[in-house]
Amino acid sequence: MKMKAAVMTQVWGSLEIMEVDLAEPKANEVLVKILATGVCHSDLNAINDETTPIPTILGHEGAGIVVEVGSAVKTVKPGDKVALSWVPFCGTCEFCQAGQVNLCESAFGPMFAGTLLDGTSRLSKDGNIVYHNSLLSTFAEYTVVPEMSCVKIPQNMPAAQASLIGCGVATGFGAAVRAARVTPMSTVAVFGIGGVGVNAIQGARIAGASKIIACDLKEQNLEIAKKFGATHTVNVGEGNTVEALRELTDGVGVHFAIDCTGNTQAASSAWQGTRRGGTTIVIGAFNPQRELALPAGGFHRLGKVLKGSFYGDVHPFRDFPLIAELYLDGKFQLDELVLSRVSLDDINSAFEAFHDHSSVNVGRIIVEFPE
Amino acid sequence: MKMKAAVMTQVWGSLEIMEVDLAEPKANEVLVKILATGVCHSDLNAINDETTPIPTILGHEGAGIVVEVGSAVKTVKPGDKVALSWVPFCGTCEFCQAGQVNLCESAFGPMFAGTLLDGTSRLSKDGNIVYHNSLLSTFAEYTVVPEMSCVKIPQNMPAAQASLIGCGVATGFGAAVRAARVTPMSTVAVFGIGGVGVNAIQGARIAGASKIIACDLKEQNLEIAKKFGATHTVNVGEGNTVEALRELTDGVGVHFAIDCTGNTQAASSAWQGTRRGGTTIVIGAFNPQRELALPAGGFHRLGKVLKGSFYGDVHPFRDFPLIAELYLDGKFQLDELVLSRVSLDDINSAFEAFHDHSSVNVGRIIVEFPE
Repeated sequence: MKMKAAVMTQVWGSLEIMEVDLAEPKANEVLVKILATGVCHSDLNAINDETTPIPTILGHEGAGIVVEVGSAVKTVKPGDKVALSWVPFCGTCEFCQAGQVNLCESAFGPMFAGTLLDGTSRLSKDGNIVYHNSLLSTFAEYTVVPEMSCVKIPQNMPAAQASLIGCGVATGFGAAVRAARVTPMSTVAVFGIGGVGVNAIQGARIAGASKIIACDLKEQNLEIAKKFGATHTVNVGEGNTVEALRELTDGVGVHFAIDCTGNTQAASSAWQGTRRGGTTIVIGAFNPQRELALPAGGFHRLGKVLKGSFYGDVHPFRDFPLIAELYLDGKFQLDELVLSRVSLDDINSAFEAFHDHSSVNVGRIIVEFPE
Repeated sequence: MKMKAAVMTQVWGSLEIMEVDLAEPKANEVLVKILATGVCHSDLNAINDETTPIPTILGHEGAGIVVEVGSAVKTVKPGDKVALSWVPFCGTCEFCQAGQVNLCESAFGPMFAGTLLDGTSRLSKDGNIVYHNSLLSTFAEYTVVPEMSCVKIPQNMPAAQASLIGCGVATGFGAAVRAARVTPMSTVAVFGIGGVGVNAIQGARIAGASKIIACDLKEQNLEIAKKFGATHTVNVGEGNTVEALRELTDGVGVHFAIDCTGNTQAASSAWQGTRRGGTTIVIGAFNPQRELALPAGGFHRLGKVLKGSFYGDVHPFRDFPLIAELYLDGKFQLDELVLSRVSLDDINSAFEAFHDHSSVNVGRIIVEFPE
């Protein structure tokens, strides 16, 4: 079929709106009409990355309606509203069998190659290949995605809010609820208040934490954190952060720390700020040239846990509908993450907004499509 | 009552055999006749430590028979055979309530003060205080210990073997079975083959690991490791240890690594040698001046767990009888840990044996008492 899409045709350039060909879904694939898609900073990174295959259709946060399903698809049918996940999984490897589908490696190859799971593309322009991105390519009117990327959500879930579930929302929520397993009346520190951090705060709030301490360098981010449930804030640029966390927790430190900064020093502070037996989750991507250095004194005696978490340890089929239900029940804030709405034709204006970090640091500009 | 004991009367000296007074057990305490006690390297460290209060009765690995119980004691009665634990717990703090009795801090103050839990001593000589050690002081014919240090074990458990349960045996077993939760057919690396390491190997073997890889600098330790269940060995002084672990595990690394070295570089290698989603347990005490440095590349994506563990996360009341049953069933090797037996009068000969590290690195010289 023919469809309109925003195509990355060059590095460091604007996306080009053009007509593209989309092939039928194969047996385990689903054709989805996109209703809304978020513009993430990772999309800007991809535009500025010389290793991104060209031409590519970017976009990895999306929601839409199922139009057609491949012959082997079991979990969705035409007409279903779906939120998309950029971490599809095979269902059969040792991680999937253990419920750790976020650790499944089946999508990594296709993700780097710009294809779907079988190593081929459904996208083309004038007979020439157009590459997928994150197996989703949501900056288009339609997309073909793996069944395991396509998660049924309630029909009354608004599309703009639904489009945000599959990236920072799930990762942050999962970091608190799945990876850290925040418990009622516990104390939680969240380092780095961005698109993941505010949702880690929400996850901690929903899990019943008594104190949620937002830690960031910028006062404006700390103010935003309060709107999502932070009960206390610590400006990590002022004074000793570890001591500040202890002062807020009767001198012992927090039960749980979640580091969303990607900064190894912040992650070390997060770990140091946890109490005896505490748990620290590292959700941010570190600079691979660095080392994470932890003070060795009393390491074994303190009994602390440090865990890296990819995608917040979420299982999309369990957690996406859960987040949608929480939103519909008024318990999860997604409206506040929708900063503004643009049409696909105006998508480049969303990228220009990244120059103003204060507004798009946490929320998203949403590209909406007519139903 | 009067009893014979080996008393530390000076730093860096020999223990003096003398008669000491032992007071009645208080409400939550138990009078135990010692049948056997292991001589641990930690006892030598205490003798060489200027902060050890003097005079002290050392000894923290013991088994015996209950002679008398305080009015509030519920878990043992006179005649019961018991193994002693040097990590008593309060039963009421948040850690105890969660079953993490190894993290209870109630014994720390008394441990440093050389007293029992109420801050006083039951030991005296000519009316002057003699200090407890680790709330046990097993280098004596009798001892008074907290009820929570006194764990009932099967009556047919031989005393020498039973005396070893409460220290390195429980710590190593627990590191594998409780802290790491080694699973059937998994792969396990154990770094540091000493009194804890060989029992971590035994724990991994009993938990059903398919490959147990012993890692040490000394070939003789690696040979000992094989006798306790190691299926493979890596000499960490030769070549790249992390690569060696990967080669033994289809290129991906082990599911579980247990570091018993107390060396931060070894612990970092252990962590690096685990696979995606793997778990590393740090059981050894690091030099507090050091830092544990972990490579930052892919930290979040790998989803690994790093956990410090004190006393192997064991619950003495659950795990001491379990280890005894495993021994009696022929599944846990304790006979091999009993190197030789001496009388209390000859206890100083056991300390002299520490100069020959090869023999007492793993096993113990046991001080036995007539029944």
